[in-house]
Amino acid sequence: MDATELCYLSAGQLSRLIVSKEISPVEVVEAHLARIEALEPTLNSFITLLPDQAMAAARQAEQEIQAGRYRGPLHGVPLGLKDLYYARGVRNTSGSRIFDDFVPEHDCTVAARFKEAGTILLGKLNLHQFAFGPTGENPDYGHMHNPWDPELISGGSSGGSGSAAAAGQCTLTMGTDTGGSIRIPSALCNLAGLKPTYGRLSRYGITALSWSLDHPGPMTRTVEDCALVMNALSGYDPNDPASANVPVPDFTSALTGDVRGLRVGVPKEYFEVPVDPQVEQTVRRAIDVLGEMGATITEVSWPAYHQAAPVSTAILMAEAAAYHSKLVRTHGSQIYPPVRTRIESGLFITAAEYLQAQRARTLFTRQSRDLFNEVDILVGPMEPITAHKIGALEVQVGETVMGSTPALTQYTRPFNLNGFPAITVPCGFSDNGLPIGLQLAGRPFDEETVLRAAHAYEQSTEWHNRRPPL
Amino acid sequence: MDATELCYLSAGQLSRLIVSKEISPVEVVEAHLARIEALEPTLNSFITLLPDQAMAAARQAEQEIQAGRYRGPLHGVPLGLKDLYYARGVRNTSGSRIFDDFVPEHDCTVAARFKEAGTILLGKLNLHQFAFGPTGENPDYGHMHNPWDPELISGGSSGGSGSAAAAGQCTLTMGTDTGGSIRIPSALCNLAGLKPTYGRLSRYGITALSWSLDHPGPMTRTVEDCALVMNALSGYDPNDPASANVPVPDFTSALTGDVRGLRVGVPKEYFEVPVDPQVEQTVRRAIDVLGEMGATITEVSWPAYHQAAPVSTAILMAEAAAYHSKLVRTHGSQIYPPVRTRIESGLFITAAEYLQAQRARTLFTRQSRDLFNEVDILVGPMEPITAHKIGALEVQVGETVMGSTPALTQYTRPFNLNGFPAITVPCGFSDNGLPIGLQLAGRPFDEETVLRAAHAYEQSTEWHNRRPPL
Repeated sequence: MDATELCYLSAGQLSRLIVSKEISPVEVVEAHLARIEALEPTLNSFITLLPDQAMAAARQAEQEIQAGRYRGPLHGVPLGLKDLYYARGVRNTSGSRIFDDFVPEHDCTVAARFKEAGTILLGKLNLHQFAFGPTGENPDYGHMHNPWDPELISGGSSGGSGSAAAAGQCTLTMGTDTGGSIRIPSALCNLAGLKPTYGRLSRYGITALSWSLDHPGPMTRTVEDCALVMNALSGYDPNDPASANVPVPDFTSALTGDVRGLRVGVPKEYFEVPVDPQVEQTVRRAIDVLGEMGATITEVSWPAYHQAAPVSTAILMAEAAAYHSKLVRTHGSQIYPPVRTRIESGLFITAAEYLQAQRARTLFTRQSRDLFNEVDILVGPMEPITAHKIGALEVQVGETVMGSTPALTQYTRPFNLNGFPAITVPCGFSDNGLPIGLQLAGRPFDEETVLRAAHAYEQSTEWHNRRPPL
Repeated sequence: MDATELCYLSAGQLSRLIVSKEISPVEVVEAHLARIEALEPTLNSFITLLPDQAMAAARQAEQEIQAGRYRGPLHGVPLGLKDLYYARGVRNTSGSRIFDDFVPEHDCTVAARFKEAGTILLGKLNLHQFAFGPTGENPDYGHMHNPWDPELISGGSSGGSGSAAAAGQCTLTMGTDTGGSIRIPSALCNLAGLKPTYGRLSRYGITALSWSLDHPGPMTRTVEDCALVMNALSGYDPNDPASANVPVPDFTSALTGDVRGLRVGVPKEYFEVPVDPQVEQTVRRAIDVLGEMGATITEVSWPAYHQAAPVSTAILMAEAAAYHSKLVRTHGSQIYPPVRTRIESGLFITAAEYLQAQRARTLFTRQSRDLFNEVDILVGPMEPITAHKIGALEVQVGETVMGSTPALTQYTRPFNLNGFPAITVPCGFSDNGLPIGLQLAGRPFDEETVLRAAHAYEQSTEWHNRRPPL
């Protein structure tokens, strides 16, 4: 198998070849390191590369597997972590030169569990500064570029994770999602990206942005790979105060390919906000496919949907200001000005405003919960547009000109606010060849239904198999 | 038995006489209504009296018991609720004329469970406006007076609950405790007053002051009565988002009278703050008594203790401002100026400050938890002084002159901040005949140990049997 083909295998496919010893983790990692080297001048996905450490780990994995100590389906599979997941002994910049020399002495829980599972860490991935910047820019480590068109954003804040997974630089990547930062780059890069339920995955050892909205999650080329990652990472962690002590299913068993009888709701409010006509058409076609596969499609009404953006923005800005205010005082001039402005703006939110936003959130979550009395999942567009130019502060969405951040987060924020699981899955391309995503969201801790529906849709279509022109 | 004696029986004693039909709930309620009538000109414990409703309920209880439908140990027992617990069809003022005509259409969960248990509601009890005022004053419904000396405060904010239970106007009363409002009046009036673990009792239908610090709880003349109330009220309530879904023990079984082997910690920090020498002497004697009864007494160090006041004040002020800001805008001139000032001050706390206080709280709670690796309970003074004059903004504490609110809350606030259960129990009197309380605090959801120790101490002493000179 040629090296590029190896780089486009999913973890599911790789594991079958690795366990049968048809390929070795060493070959796999070599192929990926070569691809990284070839594509980094174009994509700039990585802040820190770990070729020696990765090769050593690959050789160790090879030995373990040959000795019969196979750890499971992620053993020997290449991984990239957004550069705010602490990995012991590897610098962790959070996207800012202020932390250029900061080397954590412990693994975050996610990194520890990946090690346990035998995955091979190739490096730490580019991101917006503190996961809080706009428009694909990182002045300290260079901007992030979309594999489908390098002049465009790969989406933020987990932009390096998006480009690395989409371009075959890593089999698996991890993002974090506070206002959409897993789902935005996944949709814009043609990936499956899962924001699990709040509390499902541990955040211990991950740089915070906004405690009550932050979610870690996988960004991969297939839904099956998201399920494999969830299997490896789920489980209660007393080190994260928000970690939920709930049963962990085998997420891959949910991937039956069958959506017959599934009750799918389409919030009418999703189409009361600006959306590009071609995106809408593509998404509506995808929803029809779910119907043709045996799901029941109904329109539902979610009036509180329209409150998600202002309420979650207030909470995010306030929590980010609380977390970063000290850094602004001590290192303000070293923070990218638009990021610094975002942090400083949050300092003017009063406690009463913040608490009123949290109360509104309670009502929002209650209404979200009630919707799921009638349906099993909610589906709709992931993004109202395809990827825009790096640095663009405004975008054209249908007939409306609006800010790029409000546009890109209009379908993501509701599920940060209520904490419900939500996935994006490729569902088509624009006329100019850019990916379009379908968002599917489910009940709290019902990732299984979300993965089942996304996987069934994915398997009945070919969108996820397309490769960027690199 | 003469009517005053009836009014000084505990619920435990009453229930034994009621179930054996030696006395009837009708006699019991009549005696209490007569005592209320006699003492209200002095004490002003009540905002709303319900004599007709109470007599009807007493007759119904009598009939049920005679017909063999005995509901349990609170059946026929007189109760007073602080006037911020909603009772269906009874006006609920929260201590302010703004709500003089507000009549809730549903019971709070506490009131509903008391009804279920067959208790007889005699009326709604006086309090500081919105449970947020200083110094025993209520300009709208009259000040609250201490049965031990009516020129002195009965303690706030649940002052009416304190005077009513101490003077035999009610067998049982309920207070709420955000910064000490159960334990302060209980200590100053010679009662047992339990602030249970945060989440143990439902707050559904109780006017909020500060969501993350508010606790409902019983104020009674004996520890056994606190346990009986806890039995009647405990249990998960989905209507209160903070309600904990934890097992409910039989709290009365904990009252063994035995403290042998109990590890009792005395934080040295309790005596690093101003405390009246006579209070200190009395409390240290009480701690010796626990030692003589077989408990192991050790000094412990709790450095974070000193942070409890500033951290909990910031949280309380911010949450109260969020809750009441609308009322200040619409009815500001009708709020007692010192209360209005407290609410308005909270509006200037920023979200970042509030969130930093919540983070400090997390560390505070962690250190509190660690203390309980070495000991089973923490004991110390409940109040640094005895009751002071109504309206006094400053008090003399040993050699220090300080604000009355900081003084009265210096031992209470730590357990609002960490949410751990804490009880006060009578432990002696000052030379001028005023009650002194001992505070015992335990692990989260371990009310049993707290009640066991408090009960054993109480039963080995006579302080709780003294009656105010009325």
